[in-house]
Formats: sequence, structure tokens, C-alpha cells
Amino acid sequence: MRDVAIIGIGQTEVGEHWEVSLRHLALRALQAAMQDAGVPQVDAIYVGNMLSGELTGQEHIGALVADFAGLRGVEAFKVEAACGSGAAALRIGYMAVASGLANIVAVVGVEKMTDALGPDVAYALALAADGEYEAAHGVTFVALNAMLMRRYMHEYGYRHQDFAILAVNAHRNGINNPYAMFRFPVTPERFAAAPMICDPINLLDSSPVCDGAAAVVLVPAEAAHAFAKVPVRIAASAVGTDTLAIHDRRDPLVLDGAVLSTRRAYEQAGVGPQDIDLFELHDAFSIMAVLSLEAAGFAERGRGLQLALEGEIAISGRIPIATMGGLKARGHPVGATGVYQVVEVVQQLRGQAGANQVPNARLGMAQNIGGSGATVITHILERMDHCG
Amino acid sequence: MRDVAIIGIGQTEVGEHWEVSLRHLALRALQAAMQDAGVPQVDAIYVGNMLSGELTGQEHIGALVADFAGLRGVEAFKVEAACGSGAAALRIGYMAVASGLANIVAVVGVEKMTDALGPDVAYALALAADGEYEAAHGVTFVALNAMLMRRYMHEYGYRHQDFAILAVNAHRNGINNPYAMFRFPVTPERFAAAPMICDPINLLDSSPVCDGAAAVVLVPAEAAHAFAKVPVRIAASAVGTDTLAIHDRRDPLVLDGAVLSTRRAYEQAGVGPQDIDLFELHDAFSIMAVLSLEAAGFAERGRGLQLALEGEIAISGRIPIATMGGLKARGHPVGATGVYQVVEVVQQLRGQAGANQVPNARLGMAQNIGGSGATVITHILERMDHCG
Repeated sequence: MRDVAIIGIGQTEVGEHWEVSLRHLALRALQAAMQDAGVPQVDAIYVGNMLSGELTGQEHIGALVADFAGLRGVEAFKVEAACGSGAAALRIGYMAVASGLANIVAVVGVEKMTDALGPDVAYALALAADGEYEAAHGVTFVALNAMLMRRYMHEYGYRHQDFAILAVNAHRNGINNPYAMFRFPVTPERFAAAPMICDPINLLDSSPVCDGAAAVVLVPAEAAHAFAKVPVRIAASAVGTDTLAIHDRRDPLVLDGAVLSTRRAYEQAGVGPQDIDLFELHDAFSIMAVLSLEAAGFAERGRGLQLALEGEIAISGRIPIATMGGLKARGHPVGATGVYQVVEVVQQLRGQAGANQVPNARLGMAQNIGGSGATVITHILERMDHCG
Repeated sequence: MRDVAIIGIGQTEVGEHWEVSLRHLALRALQAAMQDAGVPQVDAIYVGNMLSGELTGQEHIGALVADFAGLRGVEAFKVEAACGSGAAALRIGYMAVASGLANIVAVVGVEKMTDALGPDVAYALALAADGEYEAAHGVTFVALNAMLMRRYMHEYGYRHQDFAILAVNAHRNGINNPYAMFRFPVTPERFAAAPMICDPINLLDSSPVCDGAAAVVLVPAEAAHAFAKVPVRIAASAVGTDTLAIHDRRDPLVLDGAVLSTRRAYEQAGVGPQDIDLFELHDAFSIMAVLSLEAAGFAERGRGLQLALEGEIAISGRIPIATMGGLKARGHPVGATGVYQVVEVVQQLRGQAGANQVPNARLGMAQNIGGSGATVITHILERMDHCG
């Protein structure tokens, strides 16, 4: 099996792109990544996307994106794992290069959530939950997360206001990311005053509905130094799954899928949580950030929020998260998010993160979650000039 | 890169399964394939499906199927390439085993088209076409194929009745397949009397709207002989793409995606059309069968239908097609079809095709098409006890 490296990254600004179609978003990110890599052609394109059929009236976007980018003929598919679709597509691209079946692969994550046809976005997002046992009863995706948050507060004695730190941290970092949707600060007071969406989740506990696309270019690691940019090795690529329905889980406050996914990633990379310099986690809601910190081994059960309150998730902290704004402030175009996370880890490892640079970042982890923890995909990335 | 073999196959009867949900269909096929292989566990599951979100109100079916089958925790994604989704999932499973990242992989194709929520099936199937340049103008998927068929008749001087042979052949073979949706003969007279759907495509030129699931289990070829069944090696796995919109193609009557896909498959397997003993092609409409025969090199341009008229597509002919009924008579549950095709080729190579057995079948080809030729995935399978 061949080692795989990322040699190009690209992204569009996250936001409400009323004037741009899904194919244009994908094209912009793909072209940026190919230009960054300096490659005019690829062997295959894997597109991570959740809702193109429901919201845009277009399935079959693998071949569509390939053709629209002038790459007609190349292998191309869409990969879907709800909000984990972006990292799922990266996982497939990783396999294509690792196997030797492809030498240059592009992975694109794209989602167009504004300007939607037919069903509203709350309905569409609930397709990530168990349709027959959750959504059929009218539970939306935010409601599922609200129940988790309420349970966490109840079990460990936190107040809702304790979660403010997550929005404060994400927005502080988003200010310096030109691709972020929200580039303004959030104070604890503003958090306290934010309108309630689904008690106890308020507006500033939630990531936004938005559009965006991000892309990366992969090659065999042994070939990576032939390209101009500082290459980044994929030290681990791992997946863990769990039940879609939260009520079927062993314990609703333990993301077993994330525990499995992270453990497999640590094993593949031969590292542990103490070795990770930054962690782009799936903060679709504040509670998911906290549960992810615990599942990945950065905090004991019930102590993830405490870790945040102690300042350890800041750029200068023990384990910086949402370093470019996270899902909360950069935005969460669902099927694109997993690729945005990886693009941002690469920016950090290359030393291109500007004011948000994590000093001497060598090993970064990105974790993308589908549903409320049913599909968890973890990638550990390593700056290659510091390898070995 | 490791060689990959198929050691287990499973399928449900194709039909209108009003009493069964999507997850149950997938489960039945997956359990049958795992039982056939004699494996109690797999490392990963890739699910081919096009329309679960639109028709069933459920995305995220990778993790859902894994959990429902008692395999909670394993890697699982959904792969989508319109009607080519099934073979696209197989392609991903092939990469997982070939790369060494997984040792036992299940691939499931599933589609539930009856009992649909919301949009009607004609709308949903048009999501395979170019939404902005074809479907937006009201062109359905059958209309696109009707235009291709009309053009073919015009350019090469065939009558509509000449296409009867494709329905006659598929239905003759479907009679002996207990999993086929239609198990009755079609005569040229019955074809001539069939109601028109979209001129010149009549009811017997078309595959049906239906439900079904099929599955295969993959392992490294070197390990395949440890399992009970006659193993079948994946001698080639290849993809070619083209524009979604037919009007953008170089020539509407040449499936460039199929030409590319087939050429790549022949090269990987080191064979040519003369070596293929049977060809499970994508006869969603009669015209697609004809164009596929030409693109794969079994007939010159404009001569694919002539080949059929000369009897060469029968079990006893030069290149048997639709040997278990094809999309026309076995049925076409869109995202499942590519896996059904592969299951049927395996049946032939194992000598389990009963009355439809192609004598001494050693090398079989399955070709699954997304849209009207935009994604074409070709697998060449080889009976392993006759290798080398």
C-alpha cells in the first residue's frame, strides 16, 4: 500500500451564494486546488455531497463536475455519508491512490443549501437521522442535538452559558479566515442574548445553513516532493460507525463511532492524542464539539467542556480546535465540511494560517461526522518535511 | 496492489415490494451474500444507491445498513452515480481490498422505487440527467432515450419493430431466473402491440420501476480458495465518464464513456471483446443495449442491432447478453442494478445459471451505466479455477 500526500488545496468563501450554482461552486474549489498543486489533469474525482438531489434537483454530480471542469472522461463518483460526505470522499480518494489504481486524484466537497428546490433545509438535514424511528416522529436534526445537550448539562452539572466558550473561540478564529462565513467576534454576553432555536440550543450554538466547496489533490507520497508546495502526508484515514438513531446507542453521551474512528486513526498513525497539534472537529453544534473532544481522548467523560473553559481549545492552548472558525464560524455546507477541515489542517501544517497559525504545527487531525455520530471519519495529517 | 475475488453473492427478488422497507431489502441481500461466502463479519460495507433521499426520505444509508445488519462500527458509505451507483460501489469495494485497507468487504446495491414519498419517479430519475440543461426543460429520462432511439433508426435505417429482438431475448432468459420481475415470454407480435410510452420507445423497450437489492462479498484473491465457493477474480474494474447532457457529446450515437470504460477494462484484464463469454450490459432501454454492444467492440457503428437480429445475443450466440433477464426482464432497481449484473455474471462463471447457463463461461463482463452514458463502469470477471 502506498503512502498518500496532499499537494494542493482550494476552497470557496462559505456563505449564501445566491448567484452561483452547485457546479460552479465545485468548479471554483477544484480549479483552485489543481492550480495550487500545479497539475493540469487528474485520474479521478470523488465528490462529497449530501443533498444535491433533494435541494438542487441534481444527482450524478461526479461525472457532472468532471465534465464541467474540463476533465471529461475521468473516473468520477459522488460519495454520501450525511454531513460526513466530504471526508468520506477523501477516504475514497485516499484508497484510490494508496491502491495504485490512480496517481493523481482530486477530492471535492460541495453543498448548495440556499436557493433550494422543494423540501426545506430542516427536512433535508433530517435525512441524516433515522427516517423511520426519529424523523418520522417530527424530530429535526437540531432537536436531536438539543436533547444531547440537555442530557449533558443534566448529567455533569453545566449551565447553558458554559457553552459560550465554543462560540467565542470559533468566532475569534473565524475573523482571520477570509473564507469564513462569519467574521465578527462573539462575546459571552452576546451568546447569552442569542435567540433560542431549540432549547437549550441557541443561534450561537449552531452552525449556519450555507453554500461552499473545498477541494484537495492527492498523489503518492513518494512523488509529492516533485511538486512545489510543502507536502502533507495522510498518516491515517479511518472510519467508525454507530447507530443512526440516538436511542439505540449504548450511551447517548458517548460517541462510540468517534471513539472507534479515532482509535483506528491513532493506531494507523502510531500516535496518541498527546501528539496532535490541532484538531479540526465537527462543531455543528456546541455539544458535538464537546463530545468529540471526549471521544478523541482529549478529556475524560464529562470534562470536554471543562477543557474548553480552561482555555485549552484556543490557538495557544493544549489542543486548538476550530482554528479557522470551525463549522460554527467558517460555516457548515454539509457535504463540503469534511474537505474544508482538511484544507485548514493543511494550511496549518504548511504554516499558511496567518494570524491563526498554531506554532510549529506538525501533526493535525480532522474529524468529520455524519448525523449525530453515526459515521465518523478521522484523518491525521503530517507535515512531510518534518517526517522521520 | 492485490488481486480481488468475489466469494459470495446474494439478491432479493426484483419487484414491487410494498411491504418491505429499503433497509430490509438491503439486509436480505447482504445476509444472503455473507451466508453464501460463509463470513460472519466484514471490514467495510459500500452501498450503491441513487434515490434513497428523494424517494424514501433517508440519506446516510451506509451506516444505517451496517447497523441494521448487526455490523455496527464497520466503515460504511453510500456511493452514487445515478443508475451506475451499484457498480460504483463495487469499484470502491474493489479499491478497499486491492489497497490492503480492508480484507473482507461487502458491496450492496439497493433501490426502493415503489411506495415513494414526495416526487414522482419520473422526476427522480431525471436527476441523472443535466438538471440545468435537460431536465429543467421538462425532458424526462425516457424522452432522452427516445431521441437517441429515433436518431439511430433515422441514421441506420432500422424500423422500430427491429428492436423487438431485445425484449424477446431478455424475457426468454428472465423466465428461468427466480429473482426476475418478469417471467413471461414476449413475442414480436406482443412487442408490436405494446403501448407507446414516449415515441418510439414502447412499454417493452423499457425496464420497469421496481425495488430490489443485491450484494457481493470481496476478499483478496490469494485468500479466496480458503472459502467454499468457486471464486471469481475481478480481472478488471474501470470507469469512463462523459457529459451528462446528450447535446454536449461529440456524437449522440457513440457512448464515449462506454468506449473509454471498456477500453480501460480490456487493457487491465489483457483481453479483447473476442475473449468475453457473456456481457451483462445496461439495457435500461433497447437503444442503450444496442449502443453498448457497439461501444464495447462487439459490433461496428450502426451494426449493434443487426448483431442482435442475427441471434448472436442469445445464450447460444456469439455474445450472450441479459442472460438472466437483464434490466428489461429481471428489472432495474436503479442503484442496485450494477450489483445484480455482477451477481449474475458470477452465477454464470460458477456454472449456477441453470437453464440459462452459457456453456464453459470463463470470462464475463458487466457494464453499468449512469444516466444516458455519462458514467460507465465495467467489470471483467474470471473464473479462478481456470486461471493461468
